Order: sequence, then structure tokens, then C-alpha cells
Amino acid sequence: MDAFDLDTPALYVDLDALERNIARMQQQSRAWGVGLRPHVKTHKIPEIAQMQLDAGAIGITVAKVGEAEVLPGDDVLVAYPLLQAKLPRLRELAKTRRVKVAVDSVDVARDVHGEGIETLVEIDVGVGRTGAQSPEQAVEIAQACSDGNFRGICYWPSWLDEAGFQAACVKIDAVLDALAAAGFEATIVSGGSTPGAAKTPLIPRTTEIRPGTYVFYDASSLAAKLCVEADCALRVLTTVVSTAVPGQCVIDAGSKTFSSDQTVGAGTFGHFVGRERPWTLRKLNEEHGYVEIDGPARVGEKVWVVPSHVCATVNLHDEISYGRRGRVEGSWKVAARGRVR
Amino acid sequence: MDAFDLDTPALYVDLDALERNIARMQQQSRAWGVGLRPHVKTHKIPEIAQMQLDAGAIGITVAKVGEAEVLPGDDVLVAYPLLQAKLPRLRELAKTRRVKVAVDSVDVARDVHGEGIETLVEIDVGVGRTGAQSPEQAVEIAQACSDGNFRGICYWPSWLDEAGFQAACVKIDAVLDALAAAGFEATIVSGGSTPGAAKTPLIPRTTEIRPGTYVFYDASSLAAKLCVEADCALRVLTTVVSTAVPGQCVIDAGSKTFSSDQTVGAGTFGHFVGRERPWTLRKLNEEHGYVEIDGPARVGEKVWVVPSHVCATVNLHDEISYGRRGRVEGSWKVAARGRVR
Repeated sequence: MDAFDLDTPALYVDLDALERNIARMQQQSRAWGVGLRPHVKTHKIPEIAQMQLDAGAIGITVAKVGEAEVLPGDDVLVAYPLLQAKLPRLRELAKTRRVKVAVDSVDVARDVHGEGIETLVEIDVGVGRTGAQSPEQAVEIAQACSDGNFRGICYWPSWLDEAGFQAACVKIDAVLDALAAAGFEATIVSGGSTPGAAKTPLIPRTTEIRPGTYVFYDASSLAAKLCVEADCALRVLTTVVSTAVPGQCVIDAGSKTFSSDQTVGAGTFGHFVGRERPWTLRKLNEEHGYVEIDGPARVGEKVWVVPSHVCATVNLHDEISYGRRGRVEGSWKVAARGRVR
Repeated sequence: MDAFDLDTPALYVDLDALERNIARMQQQSRAWGVGLRPHVKTHKIPEIAQMQLDAGAIGITVAKVGEAEVLPGDDVLVAYPLLQAKLPRLRELAKTRRVKVAVDSVDVARDVHGEGIETLVEIDVGVGRTGAQSPEQAVEIAQACSDGNFRGICYWPSWLDEAGFQAACVKIDAVLDALAAAGFEATIVSGGSTPGAAKTPLIPRTTEIRPGTYVFYDASSLAAKLCVEADCALRVLTTVVSTAVPGQCVIDAGSKTFSSDQTVGAGTFGHFVGRERPWTLRKLNEEHGYVEIDGPARVGEKVWVVPSHVCATVNLHDEISYGRRGRVEGSWKVAARGRVR
């Protein structure tokens, strides 16, 4: 079947682009001398996680225990502050897999323990989300880690502006020095993300990175010049359903297909593929996409859209078709979709 | 089980509030002399659609055929421009239920036909999304309706500003007059939405309204003073997972729990229930909610949040717990979640 014949809206992944993206990030990580521990929240699909592992990933990163429960990988980092309520499931996970957890408070460091559960102290490198604020705090948290299960640190993100980036490097160095002085050798320094991956070699002592988006890329990656259009492995096939309003058409995909996340820096909601005269996805309702057009559009016309934020888009769908050269060869179930716990 | 003991993040519906909301909108519709045809995209739950029908709703409204396929109601309006690709499923639906479809182009009006399929001509009353632009266009579309299946018109929304509202009323009148002059008697004039429901009696010749959000209400309804906090039937239980950054805490619910939709007019992402000192949900990442706080917060503390846009929130979850007075009595499957086709 031709992907263009899919009923719309439909998500389609080009396997050639996907395999290229996986191979390239793996190759780059090797060149940078770091392990690759992809964040699988982007795709939530066991088959893709397996492709990443087969290509050489050292394990997977998840945000929620529920993701790890349905995705493969012998070595799992839950890069999220986990509380006691999740401990029974985490311990169950640790029976068959090596499990690491990020901690950013003394209380949680004390609580999170069990056979096979290791901890990384999270460091705030400037975004102000989670993570120890100072080297002293990092040491306190490491000291609270139960059962001597401290293994290192993790930080996010690595895409700060130049001044922020320099400050982050200084902070990471200071934290590692303070930890070493207190007797805590960080064997793992986990960082990275797709936008900041290229900066990895510049960050002191990083041992592994956790990019997610790179498997598919998206319109935000494109706007940030992290990739070219051909690298955007996941596209949404949509149909023009109305041309009633002059200068506009409406496609059958809105925020329940794409999510409401905008293309970072572009103020749009997606990128139309291969158009001579650009179409602009200016606004979304739940099932309507408002497109500014400068030229004709026809009701029934099908158009491919690269979503703004692919992680959010994938999480709205149960199934994604895949194939090569525009053919549909099969479909994956988005097994970890909706696993917010 | 106490709802407060649910593992987080978790969605919980208070049945007392839900029943009150359903009864009140039904009662008001009766007082206004219009039928109530709730838009079920808000909840996507068969049991709640049945409650609305049992209370007196004349049928249901959906945006996609896939929603109608799993939700009850003998009389279904697909308030969406449907193309030929969806016709086989629509015809299947029409075998057992009365089906109406919105059309806003001559081509589609010609295409959409079949035993038991009726059409409403959609009118753009000022928002510029879909719908005929002029009375002349509306007549052309009505003339193209196959098999004499024209039944009336539909419009959206009814929450325009004062000048826009007056213009919309004039337009609806003009369209109905033009249709009547061309021999098309509109027996159905379908309008309304939750924010504009109260204006229903002011709009000429409306026979039915299609509000959706009123079953649960949300933080946007609250900000618009459409309801009070006690009417917000759906709440999200979350847990504080980090207090590392001063003046802030992070809850375990982000855009994959709430969606990225902001509270209309408020620039926040949800409303914290019953707090003396207000907390402000200022920013979301996928699994992190950034909360501005002016006072203490404790890691492990559980807090209830009314989401900004409840339709988008519900669509991210497979299951919703329900009960009364804070007890969990059961859970519903969100049967039409993700049904974008």
C-alpha cells in the first residue's frame, strides 16, 4: 500500500530516515567518547528502542516507570525524581534489569533503595527545573543515598546559550570536584539532549548522553537547523477538508493529532513537506488545522506535515505506520503511550 | 478507596458535580426552548454520553466518525467537513442511527449521501474557520445536497464579542431567509458551545445547541466565570516531586498529563484547588509542571489541579476514576480517546 493512500490523519515513519538518524547519533556518540542512552519518551515504541539498542545504545532513558515496564533495555535510567509510591514497581523492575534513578533531594535519596537500584544525583545546570542547586547540596544528597548506591550525576539540558553553557560547565566541574573530595567518585556523568548533543565534547567528564528527538526529528529541530527536511522521519498525512475562508485552508488534523506545542522559535504548529509556495500552519483547534495559503488549495488534497514537537504528537496516537520509499510495510503499536505513572 | 490515595498523576471525576452540570445545562436548554446535543469530544466516555441522553439530550455531536462509532446516541451530528474517504463508515453508521453531517462546500454536499444521512450547511459566523461565507454560498451548497437531504444549518461559535455577536445574528437571519426564498426550509439551526450557551436565546431561530465542556468545566471556564470551582467535576491529582529550586516546586504532571493548552486569558496551565496562598502552574515540560509558590511545599505533597482545557486533558488518558465525596467508586475507559479519524 502507498502511504499516500492511508486514511487521514495518519502518522508514517520512513525507515530509511529513522535508521540513518539512529546510526548517525550512535556514530557521533562513539566519536565523542560517550555512551548513548536514548530517551525513549520520544517514540514509546519497543521495536524502535530495540533498534537503538542493536545499534549500540548502552541502555534507555525514561521519565516514568510505566514507560520502562513496556520498553526493552537491560539498563534503564529513570531520569525523573521518583517518590516512595513508585518504589514497589521500581523494585520489581530491578529484579530483571539494571535500574538507575535520578534524585534531587535528601529525603528521596534516603527513600529510593533496593537490590539493583542505583542513584544519580541530578544537578540544575541553569534551567531551574529540578536538580541540586550547589556542589554542597549535591554532596548532601550523595551522602543520603542509601546502601552506597550512588553512581554519579545527571544534568539537563545542554542547549543553553553561550554564557549559560559556560556557567553549566563550571558548575558540573565544581560538583564533581566536591563529590570526589567527599569520597564520591562519579562513574556516570549523564547529560545531553538532541539540541545540545553536538556540544557534548565541550562539557567536562560527560560519560553518556540522553537525546530523544533525534530518532524522528521534528519541525522544531528543523527550525533550529539540527537536521534537514529529509531527516524528519515521522510525518503526518493530512487532508484539506475546507477552503471556505479565502486565503486559508483547513486540514483534518488539530491539537488532538499534533498536540498544541508550537515549533520553537517559529510560531507555527508544523512544517508542510516539499511545497514550492510555503503553507503556514498558523493555528489549531482540537480537530482543525488553520493553514495560511498563498495560492490554491483543493478540498480532498492530501498534504504531509512534520509536527512541531514529535514527542507530544506520538503520545496522542495508538499506532504508527512505517515503510520505505512511501510504501506502508507495517505498523507499530505505541506501547508506552499515555504511561504517565 | 480515597481518591487522595490514587497513584499520581490521576484523573478523578466527582459524580455529584458531573450530574449537577448535566442537569443544569439540560434544564437551561429547556428554558431556552432548544434541544441539547452535547459535543461528546470533551469526555469521549460512553457512560457519560448515556447520562446526557438519559437526562434529555436529543442526540450527540462528534467531530470524527471514529468517536460516533464507540459512543451511544440514536441521533448523531458529525459537526465536521467529511470527505468521501469517510463515507463507507458513515453509511455503516447510518444503518442503525440517524446521522447528520456538516457540509461547507458544493463538492462535499454532492458527495455525502446515503440512506439516513442528512446534511446541515455550515455557516461561518465570524471566526473564519470553516463554513459558507455568504447567504448565496449557503444556498449553492444546499442546492448541491444530494437526495434532498438538506435539513438546516449549523454554526460555531456563539461566544463572539458584542459587535461580532450582532453581526453573527444578522448573518444567520440572512442565510435562513435566503435558504427559505430558494425553497429550503431549515428545520434544524444548530449552534452553541459552553462559553456562549447563555446567549442562545438571543440568536435567531436556533433549535439546538452543542456545548461540550460543561460536563466537567475547566480552568478556562473558571477564568471566564462560566462556573465556580465546585462545578469543576474533573480534577487531576498530582504530587510534588521536587522543591530544589527556590520559589518553585515541580509536580509530576506536565503536557503529557494536561496537554499544552493554556488557561484562556490567564497564561497558566491549570488551577490549584482550594489553596489559601495561590500556586501558579507557570510552565510545563512533558512530565514536569513548574509551579510558582509563595510559601512552603513538601516533596511528596499531593495537590489537586483543575486542567486548563479539559477536552485536551481527557484525550491523553485511557482511564478516569470517578466517585463521590472524595471516594473512588470505579473507573471509566476513555473509549474514544485518540479516535482522530
